Amino acid sequence: MAATSSSLSSCLLRDGGLGPESTKCYNAKQSVCGSAKSLSMPSRLRHSMEAGSLSSTRSPARCCSAVRTKASPLFTLGKKFHLDDVIEAQQFDRDTLNAIFEVAKEMEKIEKNTPGSHMLKGYLMATLFYEPSTRTRLSFESAMKRLGGEVLTTENAREFSSAAKGETLEDTIRTVEGYSDIIVLRHFESGATRRAAATASIPVINAGDGPGQHPTQALLDVYTIDREIGKLDGIKVALVGDLANGRTVRSLAYLLAKYENVKIYFVSPEVVKMKDDIKDYLTSEGVQWEESGDLIDVASKCDVVYQTRIQKERFGERTDLYEEARGKYIVDSDVLNVMQKHAVVMHPLPRLDEITVDVDSDPRAAYFRQAKNGLYIRMALLKLLLVGW
Amino acid sequence: MAATSSSLSSCLLRDGGLGPESTKCYNAKQSVCGSAKSLSMPSRLRHSMEAGSLSSTRSPARCCSAVRTKASPLFTLGKKFHLDDVIEAQQFDRDTLNAIFEVAKEMEKIEKNTPGSHMLKGYLMATLFYEPSTRTRLSFESAMKRLGGEVLTTENAREFSSAAKGETLEDTIRTVEGYSDIIVLRHFESGATRRAAATASIPVINAGDGPGQHPTQALLDVYTIDREIGKLDGIKVALVGDLANGRTVRSLAYLLAKYENVKIYFVSPEVVKMKDDIKDYLTSEGVQWEESGDLIDVASKCDVVYQTRIQKERFGERTDLYEEARGKYIVDSDVLNVMQKHAVVMHPLPRLDEITVDVDSDPRAAYFRQAKNGLYIRMALLKLLLVGW
Amino acid sequence: MAATSSSLSSCLLRDGGLGPESTKCYNAKQSVCGSAKSLSMPSRLRHSMEAGSLSSTRSPARCCSAVRTKASPLFTLGKKFHLDDVIEAQQFDRDTLNAIFEVAKEMEKIEKNTPGSHMLKGYLMATLFYEPSTRTRLSFESAMKRLGGEVLTTENAREFSSAAKGETLEDTIRTVEGYSDIIVLRHFESGATRRAAATASIPVINAGDGPGQHPTQALLDVYTIDREIGKLDGIKVALVGDLANGRTVRSLAYLLAKYENVKIYFVSPEVVKMKDDIKDYLTSEGVQWEESGDLIDVASKCDVVYQTRIQKERFGERTDLYEEARGKYIVDSDVLNVMQKHAVVMHPLPRLDEITVDVDSDPRAAYFRQAKNGLYIRMALLKLLLVGW
Repeated sequence: MAATSSSLSSCLLRDGGLGPESTKCYNAKQSVCGSAKSLSMPSRLRHSMEAGSLSSTRSPARCCSAVRTKASPLFTLGKKFHLDDVIEAQQFDRDTLNAIFEVAKEMEKIEKNTPGSHMLKGYLMATLFYEPSTRTRLSFESAMKRLGGEVLTTENAREFSSAAKGETLEDTIRTVEGYSDIIVLRHFESGATRRAAATASIPVINAGDGPGQHPTQALLDVYTIDREIGKLDGIKVALVGDLANGRTVRSLAYLLAKYENVKIYFVSPEVVKMKDDIKDYLTSEGVQWEESGDLIDVASKCDVVYQTRIQKERFGERTDLYEEARGKYIVDSDVLNVMQKHAVVMHPLPRLDEITVDVDSDPRAAYFRQAKNGLYIRMALLKLLLVGW
Repeated sequence: MAATSSSLSSCLLRDGGLGPESTKCYNAKQSVCGSAKSLSMPSRLRHSMEAGSLSSTRSPARCCSAVRTKASPLFTLGKKFHLDDVIEAQQFDRDTLNAIFEVAKEMEKIEKNTPGSHMLKGYLMATLFYEPSTRTRLSFESAMKRLGGEVLTTENAREFSSAAKGETLEDTIRTVEGYSDIIVLRHFESGATRRAAATASIPVINAGDGPGQHPTQALLDVYTIDREIGKLDGIKVALVGDLANGRTVRSLAYLLAKYENVKIYFVSPEVVKMKDDIKDYLTSEGVQWEESGDLIDVASKCDVVYQTRIQKERFGERTDLYEEARGKYIVDSDVLNVMQKHAVVMHPLPRLDEITVDVDSDPRAAYFRQAKNGLYIRMALLKLLLVGW
Repeated sequence: MAATSSSLSSCLLRDGGLGPESTKCYNAKQSVCGSAKSLSMPSRLRHSMEAGSLSSTRSPARCCSAVRTKASPLFTLGKKFHLDDVIEAQQFDRDTLNAIFEVAKEMEKIEKNTPGSHMLKGYLMATLFYEPSTRTRLSFESAMKRLGGEVLTTENAREFSSAAKGETLEDTIRTVEGYSDIIVLRHFESGATRRAAATASIPVINAGDGPGQHPTQALLDVYTIDREIGKLDGIKVALVGDLANGRTVRSLAYLLAKYENVKIYFVSPEVVKMKDDIKDYLTSEGVQWEESGDLIDVASKCDVVYQTRIQKERFGERTDLYEEARGKYIVDSDVLNVMQKHAVVMHPLPRLDEITVDVDSDPRAAYFRQAKNGLYIRMALLKLLLVGW
């Protein structure tokens, strides 16, 4: 949904891939980046961002948006609670997160064939996927249908802009907005949703844009912690596995910084360590963080052990490095044994063997409940974007 | 929908591809063509055709259907307004076009959750696509859902008749008609919809069959001119770009001949000129037409500038010819500046760069409204085919 | 749907592919098979099986489940008529078949926009297809929508567990069950539905798992005979064509053994003869069977001529054998001429040329009605699994 207002600055981030070369945000080449963006992005979209890049690719240099002062939220609580688009984790402040979670909790209670289940009757959602992501797509489509809405599906949206034809994303959006009331966009290019939202006169939700953002995943992760632990202030969270490339852990760390007295432990193989941009951001926000190589020790202290998959595709030819990294930190019964009774294991899924299957039957295994929470978060967002608070 | 009646003649058209070798309809090899077709096509389906081929491929010889005398329309206006299938542009006469447009205008006014939006509740449409066409598919599916109907989707219908299996289109249709109330067919073979309709006991709509027909595009083009200009009699239309291969401009020229005092300007690179069959048809129908190489001059006179994409795939190895043709006639601010205030720019989409993006913001840029009109036309056709007038 | 109870034995079947080496069930290697399976399959799932393997692949050795004594049915007729999952033909006894057919007959009568057509309103079915099968998918989706239910579709479910990601079927099921109320699974691996059902807390229907089972096809075949001939006891059925590899004819023979005084004729080329496991089972159940090379003679005696396609893909390099087998037994007007007036021709579709098209117009050609019956059977199963008897 195109809109106006706000003035934020942008900067350039050099992203070091597997290496340690990440450069902090807020520095050099700002002009280059800012000018490049000013053409294609309305400033409104950078509303309420508070931090540096959450980028996670090996592309040599990428833009990020940042603002040093607290921006006003996209939401306006009270009589006019309003959300235009869902573009990136940075657009949410603590109040808006709380508001979304409140709606999500209502969504958990909606039963079949009750008035709530017809809330979005007559509305049409287009799932415009430029790359397949069955899990995410089914979650959104289930959310829409659970609220009585209808869906137009495409998983081969690239065909819109096939080689010979070469239609721009903007033209595609202008066509699809004529057919639907809301667009859920999955794209292979970072920033695609931002461009789509700048063009569209209807709401756009980012369902993952390449190595960039996947904000609904970030929201469901925080929501799950809130639901499982009962609080977000004062929690201790271990982020385990591929912290360099996983956009979920990066977004989660970013959002956790909005709460008080949070402590984050990074547990990862050397080659996929959390990058400096996030660490610096946490420091600047007063969040305690610590790197550790001792998963057992960390697990015994934490409320949440958030495990992630080591992404083989990031290692290219170096399968030796991959194999070494992959087996290093496994959540198994030994880890479970030291965890506190109220603590939980989370994972964005799919998992390979970084959590052993014997963990599944433990009530502290929260990852399938976490996947289900994705449904409630998406129901809440669809409701907020289409019919409002 | 299989039916009976009518006796029309068929003839063979030699189609000269990029060259000027098109042979007029009504001539040679009629017996070959007629006999080949008589097995698979009921004569009823050629009802109300009035003109030569609208073919646009480089296949050396193709069949077309023609009739010298005015045929009665597929529609019967009045108490029994009836439409069986949507096969090709030629099946529509002026009265039926007006009737469809009248229904389409009603469709524009249908609001969410009003009685009109439940018009097709309980009906099931199967989108049987043998080749992907996301734009067309989403438009049809949106139309069906906007009227309360449901959809069965397949974009890999070729799998029905995969190599090893080899099921005929007719057998597939007999199966799918058991599952649905109407079939929207996209096929890679010219004439496929005609065969499907001859087999099916439920309505079939042609959503494009190879190089053949795409009648709903033709209808939405005429409808858009009517909506934008306010009339069809007496209009001046420039058809620009690839006139040899574009089935949309060929069908549009054909349908415009049904109105009075229309003047058509053809503006195209030499290699993709409008073929003689259409020119001869226009002449025989008393429509004025003129070829011009001066887009600025033409644009200043016309009510509609209908731009099309030069199709690279038609040029094969001759990328030099493609590049030359492609850059020749661009609709940009210079063209816009000479256009009349009430005139509009149209395009079937997708566009490449044959209309520059700065044109988009001008109110005379009608192409996205045109795409939206496709929704209303398809809603109207679904309504007419499923529940009648 | 995971459940408990029952104690059945398993055994290993050596499956001889095109050759005659099939070994009877109830013998050797029971421990190997039993132990391998006991981890992943709850014994409840083997409930009510009564016979040997219906396997039909050339894999050298496969597991099957068997029980010597009659087991109680998955259904309980009367006040509590209950069906958990649809896994395989063996789970159905005569009473349950009758009960399902009774519901299917009710389904035939459901009209648009009547209360019956809203029976499954609010329910969501996920069609989780690991390999495309448009025909089966559309039939299930039509069934769900004809009853007012909604559908989440995926035909590229392999993407869930793509190379790099490697998610197990069980994890996928645990995710998808969070989004839907029932799962229809098509998989390339024999036994996949059994594993899925053991994991899922919602009902699972097998829509074909590799060379294994396709129970809804088996049900619709028996239902069609009942509808067309008016009885199942005392009928004479010719199974024609590829009897070695066709899972439909194997399942059909298995289910027909549940009725009285049935006689089965096997008419097939030498290389694709019915395997010994089915013949032995029929003998043990007191069913008369006979092999014949004279289709005309057999057709004149039978109530049902069930023709099947010779599957080219089973012959590998031996296209000579394929061509020989393929042309041997064709159902054409000569066959039709000797058939009794009340008799019918059936075929699971797709057909190639093993039934000539001139047969289609004869009222005894039942194959398209058979396809339509698939809709009613699937409606019945969805009803029974979601809202019960």
